[in-house]
Amino acid sequence: MDKDINVGIFGLGTVGCGVVKILQDNADVIKKRLGFGINIKKVFSHTSKCKNLLSNYTYAKNYKELLDDDIDIVLELIGGTDVARKFVLEAIEHKKHIVSANKALLANHGFEIFSKATQNGVKIGFEASVAGGVPIIKVITRDLMANNIKSIKAIVNGTCNYILSQMFETHESFENILNKAIKEGYAERDPSFDIDGIDSAQKMAILAAISFNAKVEEKDVYVEGIRDIDFIDIDFASQLGYRVKLLGIASMNENKLLVRVAPYFIESDNVLAKVDGVYNAISVISDMTGQTTYVGKGAGSLPTASSVVADIIDIANDIQSGQVKSALQTGIFDNVEFVDVDNLESHYYIRFSVVDSVGVLGNIALVLSKYNISIKSVVQIGKGSDVVPLLVLTHKAKEANIKKAIKEIEKDHQNIIKNGTVLIRVLD
Amino acid sequence: MDKDINVGIFGLGTVGCGVVKILQDNADVIKKRLGFGINIKKVFSHTSKCKNLLSNYTYAKNYKELLDDDIDIVLELIGGTDVARKFVLEAIEHKKHIVSANKALLANHGFEIFSKATQNGVKIGFEASVAGGVPIIKVITRDLMANNIKSIKAIVNGTCNYILSQMFETHESFENILNKAIKEGYAERDPSFDIDGIDSAQKMAILAAISFNAKVEEKDVYVEGIRDIDFIDIDFASQLGYRVKLLGIASMNENKLLVRVAPYFIESDNVLAKVDGVYNAISVISDMTGQTTYVGKGAGSLPTASSVVADIIDIANDIQSGQVKSALQTGIFDNVEFVDVDNLESHYYIRFSVVDSVGVLGNIALVLSKYNISIKSVVQIGKGSDVVPLLVLTHKAKEANIKKAIKEIEKDHQNIIKNGTVLIRVLD
Repeated sequence: MDKDINVGIFGLGTVGCGVVKILQDNADVIKKRLGFGINIKKVFSHTSKCKNLLSNYTYAKNYKELLDDDIDIVLELIGGTDVARKFVLEAIEHKKHIVSANKALLANHGFEIFSKATQNGVKIGFEASVAGGVPIIKVITRDLMANNIKSIKAIVNGTCNYILSQMFETHESFENILNKAIKEGYAERDPSFDIDGIDSAQKMAILAAISFNAKVEEKDVYVEGIRDIDFIDIDFASQLGYRVKLLGIASMNENKLLVRVAPYFIESDNVLAKVDGVYNAISVISDMTGQTTYVGKGAGSLPTASSVVADIIDIANDIQSGQVKSALQTGIFDNVEFVDVDNLESHYYIRFSVVDSVGVLGNIALVLSKYNISIKSVVQIGKGSDVVPLLVLTHKAKEANIKKAIKEIEKDHQNIIKNGTVLIRVLD
Repeated sequence: MDKDINVGIFGLGTVGCGVVKILQDNADVIKKRLGFGINIKKVFSHTSKCKNLLSNYTYAKNYKELLDDDIDIVLELIGGTDVARKFVLEAIEHKKHIVSANKALLANHGFEIFSKATQNGVKIGFEASVAGGVPIIKVITRDLMANNIKSIKAIVNGTCNYILSQMFETHESFENILNKAIKEGYAERDPSFDIDGIDSAQKMAILAAISFNAKVEEKDVYVEGIRDIDFIDIDFASQLGYRVKLLGIASMNENKLLVRVAPYFIESDNVLAKVDGVYNAISVISDMTGQTTYVGKGAGSLPTASSVVADIIDIANDIQSGQVKSALQTGIFDNVEFVDVDNLESHYYIRFSVVDSVGVLGNIALVLSKYNISIKSVVQIGKGSDVVPLLVLTHKAKEANIKKAIKEIEKDHQNIIKNGTVLIRVLD
């Protein structure tokens, strides 16, 4: 029987308390399967949602105590990038293995942290930083290691997926559903981090980095959110056999990497189209295995904590074996060129807000054709009001041209076009 | 840089040739990520579909050569249970680590093999034995290790899923689709192993064993196949909002284990209902993570081989670290009590073949009510022919009562009931 492994926890928020619960409630099954136990040795937290669980444990006076000799693994569960970065780098210098659920930290300071970890021979577990309870990090870095990954298509933000699913089901407006989501706790009081795609962008930077062994950070991700999506768009999409989803996409074409987060029209028989509510789903397309898809709760105390504990167990096994080995740290992160999205081609859905008058479509069609954009289908919804939506689905066109055309239409036809043109790509 | 790892391959069929292709085509990326290479040292095979790939490698004269000192891991890719068992046990005695894709071997001799492996300190990789390219074995034994698993619901046979999906889409008969599947290579010339549920039963025995740390073998699995499913059943199901799928179910209730393979009515918004064609999907419900679902190709040369190579890499990392550690071998397999399915309750779909005459429904209803089975909905399809299908959906009833009722109806009413009553459970 190996010796027990001691962990120190920095941060007792939603995830931290979930970790405490799992390590306590399932201590027996973990010990039975592992052959040794996992002890919570020290905890440091400014606030605690679960002090009651921890009566037997020592609260530290400051985080330095988590770096004591008898602690093997420290958990960074405070979030944010300032204190978290300082703490993690300091812990690595003290030869502590790290488990973190902090996507912002990894998407912005990951390579600094990983290189320092490699120098100090410690391991960074970050399964919980992407898609909560779905073990996508280990799947990519270990189970698919013999594959060249071609692309990732993912729903990694449960809040946006919940909102879009609810709009589809209830036919209600974005605002109504968002407010409902905030009430029900599916969205933050300040929802911008989720609905503007920032959360998804951080997660996609991490997934792209490990999938393509590439230096990818948050700043490298093209981001569009779902703020402007209206039920009209979702309804038009479903009439054409599509669902609207906020997707994260990472793909390598001719040695250039695309990492983008944006709403997409996806065919309703695509497995991702059928993932609704707060669920996350990641489809990985690789050369040998083909398409595999991983679906589960992307957030929540226990699912996320379960991934944290899986990392603890993974590192604990390494410690017992006497050699810490991480697929990720042996992999080299290369500098890569990123695709210029203006050169990409796609089918596009465009919603213009137009004055309901004669000749509007003609004017718009002229500008589109000037930029070699041909219309596949068009619908104008007369609502009796003076400004009505004009919905256009295009054939394949170059993104630069679409953007130029929209700008020109909005500039030269202000008499018939109101602002707030909405552009959504159709997933190939 | 660690030393390269040498593998010996027994069997160059579909999977074996896939392994050779992956280890050759992706040698660079594997070496880059691992920090060392994987060499194919020796191969023994009676027949080879890929001799051309192997010109540089040594063909062994007999499998004993695969047990030479310079081979670290042997791959058992011949299938079957006689020679495969003999070879694997002998290889373990020679302290060789084993990777096998052989579900029949593991579902029938797994515990003999695992205990011998534990005695000899070697590891058994068997990711490829269940669901081809889907890394479900590692997910359960490692990523969900901190969880108590409550149940598994899975589509693990691509042939059956293809046939049922095609019947749903084309409205054609089971026979027509099966013949098409055989022509297109989605089904074997002798399809009984797949369509009678045997293949699924072997896979479910393996999944149940690792999910519940329980001694489960093929003989412990209740099995029904899809031979008797007619388009009528699929059509009736879809009218009520269900899809018909061959499911493997493993669940623990009050310390009794149920492992069953059978066709089920499942609600069409269940994620498994949306997995069509040759794809496999496994839903795992666990106490902390909740429901997670894993979808991918369940068969095929490269997806299956990719899982074999993932096992090789996993074991190779252990070898390099100097200590081989397997979640499975440290876990203890307990003897468990199995559920008596006659005591289970469920909603049931029953298709009687009845003579189209007055009083038929009355007679059937009487017998059902005698056994406390109440009818939720019933449809009789008059086809002008003398024998017509009578479709019944029941409220919750005890399985023993359903079976007794059907037997009594078939026995006492031979004048109105023709044989071939079909019973399908409704998934809760």
